[in-house]
Amino acid sequence: MNKPRRTDQIKLIAFMQAQNCTNYAGSWRHPETMTDVLTPAYYQRIARTLEEGKFHLAFFDDRLAMPDIYGSDYRAAVEFGIRPVKLDLIPILTAMGLVTQKLGLGATYSTTYTHPFHFARSFATLDLMIGGRAAWNVVTSINDSEAENFGLDEHLEHDIRYDRAEEFIDVVNGLWHSWDDDALVVDKATSRYADPTKVKALNHEGKWFKCKGPLTVPRSPQGDPIIIQAGQSGKGQHFAAKWANLVFVMYKDIAAGAKQYDAFKKIVEEHGRSASDMVVAPAIYTIVAPTREEALQKKALIEAQALPQDTLVLLSEILNFDFGTRGLNEPLTDEDLASISAPVWVERVVKASGSPNPTPQDFITHTGRGTINDAPVFCGSPSDVADEMEAWFYGGACDGFVLAATHSPGAYEDFVRLVVPELQRRGSFQKDYLGETLWDNLGRPARGGRS
Amino acid sequence: MNKPRRTDQIKLIAFMQAQNCTNYAGSWRHPETMTDVLTPAYYQRIARTLEEGKFHLAFFDDRLAMPDIYGSDYRAAVEFGIRPVKLDLIPILTAMGLVTQKLGLGATYSTTYTHPFHFARSFATLDLMIGGRAAWNVVTSINDSEAENFGLDEHLEHDIRYDRAEEFIDVVNGLWHSWDDDALVVDKATSRYADPTKVKALNHEGKWFKCKGPLTVPRSPQGDPIIIQAGQSGKGQHFAAKWANLVFVMYKDIAAGAKQYDAFKKIVEEHGRSASDMVVAPAIYTIVAPTREEALQKKALIEAQALPQDTLVLLSEILNFDFGTRGLNEPLTDEDLASISAPVWVERVVKASGSPNPTPQDFITHTGRGTINDAPVFCGSPSDVADEMEAWFYGGACDGFVLAATHSPGAYEDFVRLVVPELQRRGSFQKDYLGETLWDNLGRPARGGRS
Repeated sequence: MNKPRRTDQIKLIAFMQAQNCTNYAGSWRHPETMTDVLTPAYYQRIARTLEEGKFHLAFFDDRLAMPDIYGSDYRAAVEFGIRPVKLDLIPILTAMGLVTQKLGLGATYSTTYTHPFHFARSFATLDLMIGGRAAWNVVTSINDSEAENFGLDEHLEHDIRYDRAEEFIDVVNGLWHSWDDDALVVDKATSRYADPTKVKALNHEGKWFKCKGPLTVPRSPQGDPIIIQAGQSGKGQHFAAKWANLVFVMYKDIAAGAKQYDAFKKIVEEHGRSASDMVVAPAIYTIVAPTREEALQKKALIEAQALPQDTLVLLSEILNFDFGTRGLNEPLTDEDLASISAPVWVERVVKASGSPNPTPQDFITHTGRGTINDAPVFCGSPSDVADEMEAWFYGGACDGFVLAATHSPGAYEDFVRLVVPELQRRGSFQKDYLGETLWDNLGRPARGGRS
Repeated sequence: MNKPRRTDQIKLIAFMQAQNCTNYAGSWRHPETMTDVLTPAYYQRIARTLEEGKFHLAFFDDRLAMPDIYGSDYRAAVEFGIRPVKLDLIPILTAMGLVTQKLGLGATYSTTYTHPFHFARSFATLDLMIGGRAAWNVVTSINDSEAENFGLDEHLEHDIRYDRAEEFIDVVNGLWHSWDDDALVVDKATSRYADPTKVKALNHEGKWFKCKGPLTVPRSPQGDPIIIQAGQSGKGQHFAAKWANLVFVMYKDIAAGAKQYDAFKKIVEEHGRSASDMVVAPAIYTIVAPTREEALQKKALIEAQALPQDTLVLLSEILNFDFGTRGLNEPLTDEDLASISAPVWVERVVKASGSPNPTPQDFITHTGRGTINDAPVFCGSPSDVADEMEAWFYGGACDGFVLAATHSPGAYEDFVRLVVPELQRRGSFQKDYLGETLWDNLGRPARGGRS
């Protein structure tokens, strides 16, 4: 293994969902998957495992609706358990934070349907309650099912969403900095609670929001939450380069990854930031067992849990297009393709299939949606998996990984038991946390002057 | 003590604040008050105490802004600790619920600045994480400081707020009932997660909100949260009579209480509900010690913590009127009085002072705002306090009490250590919880047919 000059170590992030399945819909049908997902025990158990494995962060995605585009109905999603459940993340992260000391805890929260004051207060409080370990994955909602729960018939147009999201973050950041780090006095003898010159109003009046401030929440041990972003479109990348500290990406393979990683780090530098200040982490699945043969057996069992419905329901949802309106091998029309809300997916399938009008089957084949092939799968012995991870990391394709779970909590437990010690032995992954807060543990200055 | 025919027992609710002080602003200056209010330990400690004392509920108020009307500035609030801190309640309630098994946990949440889908999801998740013990205190925001944090220059007009709030509750209730109690199947063998005929869309299209549904959260062990209301105005009472299960009131004394209690229970019956289905609980302070003399000494120490600023800041805030614009003994003009947003307070002060144009000092004297005299104070030996509580309860002035804390956690600890055993000995208060969920513990049917 060629290990050129990287002095940092792999960052590990667990990809989690507060729903009935992992990112892999079939996971709930796996014989070893726990089904107590409506209780805190489920999330706390995983949190303890991840902290034992020195993971930097557990990170949750979110959706504000059931899948209901396929067949214009939520019936299939509910019946087959294709993500019909989606819990609010604040209580979940609180529960996980109360049984851990160092693990970072990140939640996706959309800027589209809420006001920044509510959001800023909620996350600042969470960050206090978990001792300065919160992270926020900024997203804009792109899905009509979500829009319809909030009284809109369609989601907002792409560039407008980012425009509004920028102002949203700006207000949130302003509110998070309305108390100086040393504003609190709390002196009973003089009746002085805080220094009023160190608490500032915001008086924001923008295009989308007005907000006076100050926030009613003082600073947390880490100051304010880490910002995560997952946008890979042009505008999304610039958005991430400007605001984020951690970027969650989907890279097809190491070659594509290295290219995209490089291009993105250049954008980061164009925004006047140091490339090393930004953690880029692609999603992967890992399937590990003491031997390669056992790992392959595990993989077969995992793959057997997928139903055809999973793919069609999830594909319809993420692309805002009802794949039930076309036969499996019927080409999508130009109008169909133009109506799909994530053009990057269309480009990928058109390119991979060689057809300007791909069929639903082409989308299934080339997206892997609803199967574990929607992300690279590292399968084998502990040494095999560690080799692949090191290849990506030292090969300049990432700074760490977002581990999606094939089943839960088994996938996290296997990884922590088998792969973490191997990476630690090789010196590629931390043997202990650097500090107390998430900012500390990502190797950034803990407080002050970094907004 | 005359105990006429009540077969039920006193309900006990702790009045709490996720802020730097209790409802009594001066409390933070009390030598025994803990100041770790920005950590979960503070709230968890109180939760354990309340559960030891078999309290039915810990109930939090909320405010979405610092006080900043007095002198048109938040400076005094920040400097003297007059409620400048106000944390989001969901992480706090989660933290308290995770260290208790039976204690109900209620949070105030305004219907004014958020969408019912967000709120419904958040509270339904909380209710799952704490095992079916959540309660929601429905409020409409009446304060300009709050409005300004959400981009409005002024708060919404009174009747419009209630109109919108009714529709808000209607949508929330609809979402909370979108999964039937027995919708979940979770059968790995048949891949059936839930019965799609038992999960219903809402398709709400009203005057204020549109919402498609279903909610992405299945039912909790108690079905859905208890609804609390605190409105004492005409429209507020009808709102409470229609929607609430628990009503939080301010009664000046036992005579006024008995009259208002009676009148309100009639309104409840006019709405076709049984009067006994509604718990009416006035706020009180209790100051208890082994002897009456010691209690009076405690009271003197508590009262000594109040500053004149406390009263002026809090009075300005709740009435949306800057008392700094008039001298202490300068009568308010008719225009001043008309601009006050809670007419019930003006009526009270006009009546008590005998002046149609009362002065700020009249407001201080007759509201008790900022002191412990904003609610009845039951002070004395355990037997004295129990006597007063029984007098109110058996005298038909209430079904229970909302205990405000003079200092914290001391006030709760004193009450649990000294008064609870006395009430239990007399048979006026429960020796143990009736069941597991908050619905169980308030003596209502646990599930089904009660929305």
